Amino acid sequence: MSLPSTLLEHAVDQLATLPGIGRRTAMRLALDLLRRDAQEVVRFSDAIRKLREEVRFCDVCCNISDEPRCAICRDPQRDASTICVVEDIRDVIAIENTRQFKGLYHVLGGVISPMDGIGPDDLNTQELLGRVAEPGVNEVILALGTTIEGDTTGFFLNRKLAERKVAVSMLARGLSVGGDLAQADELTLGRSIADRKPYEQHAKR
Amino acid sequence: MSLPSTLLEHAVDQLATLPGIGRRTAMRLALDLLRRDAQEVVRFSDAIRKLREEVRFCDVCCNISDEPRCAICRDPQRDASTICVVEDIRDVIAIENTRQFKGLYHVLGGVISPMDGIGPDDLNTQELLGRVAEPGVNEVILALGTTIEGDTTGFFLNRKLAERKVAVSMLARGLSVGGDLAQADELTLGRSIADRKPYEQHAKR
Repeated sequence: MSLPSTLLEHAVDQLATLPGIGRRTAMRLALDLLRRDAQEVVRFSDAIRKLREEVRFCDVCCNISDEPRCAICRDPQRDASTICVVEDIRDVIAIENTRQFKGLYHVLGGVISPMDGIGPDDLNTQELLGRVAEPGVNEVILALGTTIEGDTTGFFLNRKLAERKVAVSMLARGLSVGGDLAQADELTLGRSIADRKPYEQHAKR
Repeated sequence: MSLPSTLLEHAVDQLATLPGIGRRTAMRLALDLLRRDAQEVVRFSDAIRKLREEVRFCDVCCNISDEPRCAICRDPQRDASTICVVEDIRDVIAIENTRQFKGLYHVLGGVISPMDGIGPDDLNTQELLGRVAEPGVNEVILALGTTIEGDTTGFFLNRKLAERKVAVSMLARGLSVGGDLAQADELTLGRSIADRKPYEQHAKR
């Protein structure tokens, strides 16, 4: 596909670098932007540039924040003795939406993935170990994805954290709530059998 | 979903204005951009701003072009007596890829769509009628999408062009090449029966 304009070519090339966006979709997006008001496109382009240039991260939990400490870390109502370790900010939002967690977070900024050349030092692991070294932290919840990379990262962190005096826990794995037994994949169903709980414990909730 | 940073919120809002991109995907794209090199994101944002600010259109066919006349209109090998009318530049690329058409194009920049408030005057229709008024144009091919909007636009243009001395044709509709009869939709299959051709005419190609 050779394009009649180098400006268009550059825009399509750049849009196609976004995850999940192929050249065909990038073309559709570029044409949509082209049809807009010039001012609107300036706002679009500025919002993206500013995000990267002016973004800052919470000094404590590495979450994205407009201030030196994020709103969650600043909140005196939150339980500072429990730290929930997540891969990225989307996980923070997902967990916040459950309203089940009142502790603080630690955003790793990714998971260990040798295939992608991402090791522990590319993540905010030192910051986490530093926080746990301070007195007052009792529990670290490893809320990582149930992928090989998530498991690897959990394994690594658990080993590092074993040296400290904190409880390390991980999220329960099992059937989705509202899910059908027959529709669950074998691994999940197997895990839910192995990890079965006394009925009373379940009913208490 | 309340975000911990207004910078992020703005970027997600803007990305979510793109067609087919919801807020969840916009969030993923924003986080991807955040992880990149600052220079890379400046290049990304510049390519989009420049596309809109510096883009120009061919004086003749309204195709996107870096020069006053696009490469197709400048090409002396092309047959200037036939004009293929299309909705947007993607259609030009698609038809060029077939290598079946050696004439020139006319890019309308959309189709008539009362629902979206797009009338004939919002499209490059006057430019088309101007071109057809010049001597030397024998045929106008209406290569519009097979939607209600495409049909409406074709109907409108055909009526306008009837006043001029040009043949007006439209693309054949029928079964997809390589397609299964049973998989074709009823409208297409019905049309392919109504528009059936003598076998000899088919075999000649």
